[in-house]
Amino acid sequence: MKFYLPVRLLTGRGVVSEQAAALAALGRKCLIVTSGTAARRCGALDDVTAALEAHGVAYGIYDAIQPNPSMDSCLEGGQLARELGAEFIIGIGGGSPLDAAKVVAVSAANPELEPEALFGTRWANKPLPIALVGTTAGTGSEVTPISVITDPEGHKRPVNSEQIYAALSLGDPRYTDSMPLPVTASTGVDALAHCLESYFNKNATDVSRALSLQGVATLVPPLRSVAAGRTPDAGEREALYHGSILGGMAISICGTVMPHNMGYYLTENLGLPHGFACAAFLPAMLHHVAADVPDYARTLEERTGCSLQELEALIRGLMPPLELHLTAEEIEALLPRWENAPTVQRTAGVITPELIRGALAELAAEKNA
Amino acid sequence: MKFYLPVRLLTGRGVVSEQAAALAALGRKCLIVTSGTAARRCGALDDVTAALEAHGVAYGIYDAIQPNPSMDSCLEGGQLARELGAEFIIGIGGGSPLDAAKVVAVSAANPELEPEALFGTRWANKPLPIALVGTTAGTGSEVTPISVITDPEGHKRPVNSEQIYAALSLGDPRYTDSMPLPVTASTGVDALAHCLESYFNKNATDVSRALSLQGVATLVPPLRSVAAGRTPDAGEREALYHGSILGGMAISICGTVMPHNMGYYLTENLGLPHGFACAAFLPAMLHHVAADVPDYARTLEERTGCSLQELEALIRGLMPPLELHLTAEEIEALLPRWENAPTVQRTAGVITPELIRGALAELAAEKNA
Repeated sequence: MKFYLPVRLLTGRGVVSEQAAALAALGRKCLIVTSGTAARRCGALDDVTAALEAHGVAYGIYDAIQPNPSMDSCLEGGQLARELGAEFIIGIGGGSPLDAAKVVAVSAANPELEPEALFGTRWANKPLPIALVGTTAGTGSEVTPISVITDPEGHKRPVNSEQIYAALSLGDPRYTDSMPLPVTASTGVDALAHCLESYFNKNATDVSRALSLQGVATLVPPLRSVAAGRTPDAGEREALYHGSILGGMAISICGTVMPHNMGYYLTENLGLPHGFACAAFLPAMLHHVAADVPDYARTLEERTGCSLQELEALIRGLMPPLELHLTAEEIEALLPRWENAPTVQRTAGVITPELIRGALAELAAEKNA
Repeated sequence: MKFYLPVRLLTGRGVVSEQAAALAALGRKCLIVTSGTAARRCGALDDVTAALEAHGVAYGIYDAIQPNPSMDSCLEGGQLARELGAEFIIGIGGGSPLDAAKVVAVSAANPELEPEALFGTRWANKPLPIALVGTTAGTGSEVTPISVITDPEGHKRPVNSEQIYAALSLGDPRYTDSMPLPVTASTGVDALAHCLESYFNKNATDVSRALSLQGVATLVPPLRSVAAGRTPDAGEREALYHGSILGGMAISICGTVMPHNMGYYLTENLGLPHGFACAAFLPAMLHHVAADVPDYARTLEERTGCSLQELEALIRGLMPPLELHLTAEEIEALLPRWENAPTVQRTAGVITPELIRGALAELAAEKNA
């Protein structure tokens, strides 16, 4: 069993103002990395700048982060941070700005770095300290050492390093209030995927299992509201946020498995939002584990009070229709991408090419049906 | 919700040898703090010294730590560490040596400290880095920022500071093999108390609940073996160890409640081992929560597959007979110690003087029965 999760996390209403001194303790100048509109709309950007101003911390704002952030935008942010003399980085937003902020912190501290070396685990200079302020309830990036960025070839690839854990992570569930229902669904199902993929994971530990099971139990009731088309109330928003943190902590320990890895393909090729893209492969994983590791699957059902059938129905209820066009030949051509991928192979049970083929064929068939 | 648990924890067979370089990275000289016999018998001391020697780290050994370690022994250890020029402290053993090692690290770095100031939360100089090697399955001290030491008046009092988190914690469940069955029972029931007291706790969070619930589910099966008089096998030893870590993480987040605080009295006055002393008050707490927060209690039952009645029977099956002689007058005289104690009052539900009186009277009555 391994555990190392040195993030200082605080959540709650008004937490950014309350923790203004802790934020300011990270340095005298910072660069805020965000995507722009969402962070402004929900009030997080205003809260952060007010906290910094109250403590005399100078800041610049880099608000050009797009969904599935590019390596180039991270390098640009790093350059800007250096020009500004930033001593730390604050990421504000959903998974994309938070992930980007981590790599901006690497890039800022390492001006000579070859772009490909961003995908390393250690760098000549330690990344700048990172603070993260989440505004969605899904990514879990607030508490992970992981950043997924899109390389110049258009592939989503993870940076995974202890050095990019946030020093401070502040989560105010009120920031998630302004998420439209489809974004709530996509981010919520991402959090559920984190919990299920960390559970059905050969690297799961007793600690990650604790977090995965509690995450499922915490997420399912509010996600049922979302699937029924109801906007979550304050208590449900908080449960979704805490569920996303539980999922993030769980994947910090053992990572994601097959659905996330295969989901990247759907985002890259169909532009499907990350959460939906990963969740698209969850039903295939649930069928697989029910057959291949039935006792282990039953423990999840008993310990969360939620059957795999109910989970599958919930996931399908949250998903939009997919538009996946794949011929049998195209599916065969895709198999090598996943057949021996370590992330796919650490899924619980035995992952065969037939399973991957079947998962793709099922999605393509749903479209044709 | 708050979370900050920066310990690097690794567990597994042979972990001390495997992580020798990580241990040696903490400094060039260290003081080993232990109680002597147990750490030698189980092989942990040999493994640690071999790891240090392999990396050229000099060390001294302070092996005078008694159960319920005294403030004086911690000050003596601190003095010794300074004389040696130790750059870090390694604690080896059960709760007493691990707790003592933390305070030795404080004392070593702060020669001018007034003894009473050991009970602070910050000190002029940062404590020396701490590594911990657990040899029992109970304390959870490996992953907590807590040390309980006995003051010159004979009272057990906690030191609680982020600064005494271990930098590195190495747990090899094989070290617990040599624990006699009564020690396995006392330490195991301490771990169970941590899980239950963190769950029935006004400061519990979704993360602590995750750990508490998994801890109960992990500990109950092997503890049933112990209660039946069977020496645990290797798998059960590992489950007990992991359960103790889950409990330790949970109390790192929200602390213990009534049973621990009242249990100190039994250790101070009857010399009862710590685990049994705390567990003695668990049945009273379980009766209280079943009546006072029934829905919350039911969730624990559903999520662990274990009823409160079963838990109570298990706890009683693990406990030795008590010798508590208390008259009604003596009980009244004791009440003020706990009536308004914050630790007692953060127990879930409403803690009344009647509850505390009843818990004491019940124990005294058992003796008389």
